[in-house]
Amino acid sequence: MNELVFVGLGLNDEKGISVRGLEETQTADQVFMEQYTNLMVDFSLARFEALCGKKVQVVSRRNLEEENGKVILEAAKAGKTVFLVPGDPFIATTHVTLRIDAEKQGIKTRIVHGTSIMSAIVSLSGMHNYKFGKTVTVPFPENFSETPYNVIAQNKKNGLHTLCLLDLNAAEERFLSINQAIKMLLEVEEKKKLGAVASDTVAVGIARAGGNKPTLKADFVKDLANFDFGQAPFSLIFPGELHFMEVDSLIAFAGAPAEFRRLSK
Amino acid sequence: MNELVFVGLGLNDEKGISVRGLEETQTADQVFMEQYTNLMVDFSLARFEALCGKKVQVVSRRNLEEENGKVILEAAKAGKTVFLVPGDPFIATTHVTLRIDAEKQGIKTRIVHGTSIMSAIVSLSGMHNYKFGKTVTVPFPENFSETPYNVIAQNKKNGLHTLCLLDLNAAEERFLSINQAIKMLLEVEEKKKLGAVASDTVAVGIARAGGNKPTLKADFVKDLANFDFGQAPFSLIFPGELHFMEVDSLIAFAGAPAEFRRLSK
Repeated sequence: MNELVFVGLGLNDEKGISVRGLEETQTADQVFMEQYTNLMVDFSLARFEALCGKKVQVVSRRNLEEENGKVILEAAKAGKTVFLVPGDPFIATTHVTLRIDAEKQGIKTRIVHGTSIMSAIVSLSGMHNYKFGKTVTVPFPENFSETPYNVIAQNKKNGLHTLCLLDLNAAEERFLSINQAIKMLLEVEEKKKLGAVASDTVAVGIARAGGNKPTLKADFVKDLANFDFGQAPFSLIFPGELHFMEVDSLIAFAGAPAEFRRLSK
Repeated sequence: MNELVFVGLGLNDEKGISVRGLEETQTADQVFMEQYTNLMVDFSLARFEALCGKKVQVVSRRNLEEENGKVILEAAKAGKTVFLVPGDPFIATTHVTLRIDAEKQGIKTRIVHGTSIMSAIVSLSGMHNYKFGKTVTVPFPENFSETPYNVIAQNKKNGLHTLCLLDLNAAEERFLSINQAIKMLLEVEEKKKLGAVASDTVAVGIARAGGNKPTLKADFVKDLANFDFGQAPFSLIFPGELHFMEVDSLIAFAGAPAEFRRLSK
């Protein structure tokens, strides 16, 4: 049957995929994969090919976007085609156009979801999912922006937590560090003075969420800036109002100092 | 090695688990599972036991909470213990206490993440993840609350989308329908008249997100109320400001009427 199945690879390595996703891959006529919308630190293409028993064609951002996914759409017209995407296939919006184009050309599409970095970070922190506001990405310094600061300030005003993804360039293996992100936010604070991210603000740094040995550290911003998180990728949470159970979690799993107790409601 | 590994079952059925999660289960000394924090519509315990080659002990909410997870903690003191949880293990906060208790008793814990309903819904809709504000659950009518309406209104004020999970009782197989949820929201509108959820408001209804044949329908509230979504579980998205790419997605994947085009920015 000709169709295009978007399959999420999940997190970290070749075993992050769901059992269903693996089965769909094993029964495909052609298999494509991209590895540029997110980073899977311990992923091995050779091990994945052994697992699914198929030859996997890796597509680059350039050849996928410049040719509007032509190679994938042609394959999907001829038979069952699986397109493997890190995390959950449409949390990054990069491939929405490809799915729309497929449907317009009469190709049936399906999604097999994967674990997303978004829920992994929330889950690791033990913080309450329904208390997170809008998510934001902190860009590299050359793309300096006040937006992340403004999002944190707006969420805090509403008592909400902010999940900050720190920018990365998977192809160049370049990552924004927690230290750099904090520096950028403090610069905006200097200017705006809303108190949203100051040196005595509490935050949670997370490295390698979804990996086998993630590092979490909850602390005041001034202390987090000097903490050694090890290998990338990184993310940050700026809490809004903390429930005492969330503080318990941050003390138990993220080494938060006992002073955090006075923050909870 | 004695440890407690929380493993996400992912969505829908026994193949929603990740390959890594399945391996952890296959190598465990004891395996526990709960099925009350979320619903896995097509899950078969017999098929899952065949897949992992282990006897799985299903725990109920009552015996887990009243006994503070004693049976699981005792098992984890004796050997490698896997606790299987629908979706991602800590997106519902139900088991955070168990994890804290384990660590306090010197038991090492790890998390193997699973696909969460949260990212599946966003992914299916083709809407932009970073434009979602706070999430909210719409309760059964006997627990009537103005909170969901207020959350939608607040998010809209900031141009943000709202993901509404509709209440369910997995044990009783009871589900709040999209029609009932809309009715409750319109009642609050009658009183508050903020225009956050009126009969000409646009919304997206989703049934069986993460299942093999999800149903999506984007329409005006008055028309959604009469749409047949089929089997539960259900969720709703109330868009804030829509990007034209999001409108394209809703037209392509959720049968949105062409009038939606005039809504985008």
